[in-house]
Amino acid sequence: MPQPGRRQLLAAPALLLATAPALAQSPAPSPGTPPTAQAPGWFRFQLGSFTVTTISDGHARRNIEGLVLNAPAETVREVLAESFLPTDHYIGPYNVTFVDTGRQLIAFDAGTGGQLTPSAGRLPAHMAAAGLDPARVGLVIVTHCHQDHIHGLTNAAGAANFPNAEIAIAEQEFAWWSDATNETRSPQGQRVNFANVARRFAPYQGRIRRFAPGAEVAPGITSVPAFGHSPGHTVFRVSDGNAQMLVLADLTHRPELFARRPDYISLFDFDGAAAAATRRRILDMAATDRIRVTGYHFPFPATGHLARDGEGYRFHRAEWG
Amino acid sequence: MPQPGRRQLLAAPALLLATAPALAQSPAPSPGTPPTAQAPGWFRFQLGSFTVTTISDGHARRNIEGLVLNAPAETVREVLAESFLPTDHYIGPYNVTFVDTGRQLIAFDAGTGGQLTPSAGRLPAHMAAAGLDPARVGLVIVTHCHQDHIHGLTNAAGAANFPNAEIAIAEQEFAWWSDATNETRSPQGQRVNFANVARRFAPYQGRIRRFAPGAEVAPGITSVPAFGHSPGHTVFRVSDGNAQMLVLADLTHRPELFARRPDYISLFDFDGAAAAATRRRILDMAATDRIRVTGYHFPFPATGHLARDGEGYRFHRAEWG
Repeated sequence: MPQPGRRQLLAAPALLLATAPALAQSPAPSPGTPPTAQAPGWFRFQLGSFTVTTISDGHARRNIEGLVLNAPAETVREVLAESFLPTDHYIGPYNVTFVDTGRQLIAFDAGTGGQLTPSAGRLPAHMAAAGLDPARVGLVIVTHCHQDHIHGLTNAAGAANFPNAEIAIAEQEFAWWSDATNETRSPQGQRVNFANVARRFAPYQGRIRRFAPGAEVAPGITSVPAFGHSPGHTVFRVSDGNAQMLVLADLTHRPELFARRPDYISLFDFDGAAAAATRRRILDMAATDRIRVTGYHFPFPATGHLARDGEGYRFHRAEWG
Repeated sequence: MPQPGRRQLLAAPALLLATAPALAQSPAPSPGTPPTAQAPGWFRFQLGSFTVTTISDGHARRNIEGLVLNAPAETVREVLAESFLPTDHYIGPYNVTFVDTGRQLIAFDAGTGGQLTPSAGRLPAHMAAAGLDPARVGLVIVTHCHQDHIHGLTNAAGAANFPNAEIAIAEQEFAWWSDATNETRSPQGQRVNFANVARRFAPYQGRIRRFAPGAEVAPGITSVPAFGHSPGHTVFRVSDGNAQMLVLADLTHRPELFARRPDYISLFDFDGAAAAATRRRILDMAATDRIRVTGYHFPFPATGHLARDGEGYRFHRAEWG
């Protein structure tokens, strides 16, 4: 295709530059409406020889009133606004971290199973987009037994969503929710967990492994007790060679709120004082050692780093690519 | 499918909890290697009735030495480390902003066209993933004529990559690079732009519209002169109803460096002092008015907000979803 030389082009700017607003070459209006769908919520990175994929299961929309037990809603709104988040409602994202160690595909928690809120339940579609087959998951590590983390163990009919998976869970966490005598000693809003644990773990009978705090759960994956948010809430250190990462689970809910203000106690915390102390301790470790993290309620892609900033910590989302 | 009742489950924990490490139900090792591809780099949001899609074209990898003209490399490394970015090299992302106004699909700049560095040139694949057809683009607004913004106007053979598009460009910008007598008055590293502008604009002859600074370029899209980074570098205010956004183009290169330190002058700035003054002015406006932004070299998805922080500004990436 012949192309004008540079001199020829530069010599005739008036001919090149149309001044009329309408152009014969303008395309006809596009047929139909523009696409409005969002890109599928999955994100992948390497951790040593491990392949990590974070998958968005969607989010829940909540009232700001009542979310933080020890701060007025107006102050909470100010903290959210600092990170340009909505101030008329609270978006709580759900993200599942998958680690493929080469030996095994491991999931940290199970998502909502599409049985909690209409704005969540996208895990299966996003796993498919990421090339992850639920039947390939060999281990689901349950960080704690709140509904949004274990509903996805089964479908609504009670069948296992991860048909070939073993479950690993801290013995304190499983023991608490498996003993009905603890029901009256649990916050009102968390009593639903007793029946739900029974229901969601049922199809995994004989494949539930309890571990002690600090135990290595799988090669390269070590538990770190982080009790408070729930009786046996656990975070995990994932490491391969020199590479390491902390799976923070619910150490904080959205970091823009609960890492910025680690002493905030949320509606979801089982033992608020213990949760806040644990939060301070592990956030401090993550920031001091500059360890990569993932968080279940962190903004997608739910991975990055935490740095000290002011009275709390700031989450720096990881680079895409 | 029958399911044990809650009491039955709770009554027999010893039977439920396997203690043996190996399990008969464990899946066989997965066939083949795990998927390692990254999710396609596109992201979509609404701006009033407009649909905005940011598309990653990939990135360039550069030396840190020589990147900032008025700060030592060691200091630059410290600023990068503050945002957990690599300190042994610099990643410069490329992102194209598309705005579908309902009347027209508009692109801000054209990407690298796969003709600049092997780690870029992903625009066509990511546009396809986002459902955007280059033939549907009715207008390419060129923010300035640096190679990484206009190479993608044509393929290597010189044919238009956006066959039905008009081009709009600030008259100062087009005039500078179209007048060969300016060559000796341009920084050595930017002299390549004279020939490249001729080459890249060639197949759009008769479809190049020059506009004056401050002009409305298309309904809802107003130019804001931001000279300095190049002679006619322009940013754009996109608005529909009460919703608005600034397309910042190269007002800053990576915000983790050049918004955190707005007075840094980069290797890429045509007139360093003017670029820094413009940067301060428009960053201040974006932060004061809390206007959503996109940036060509911002970390994907390349959209969010800027807030004052310390001696500069901090970029808050937008929520996914």
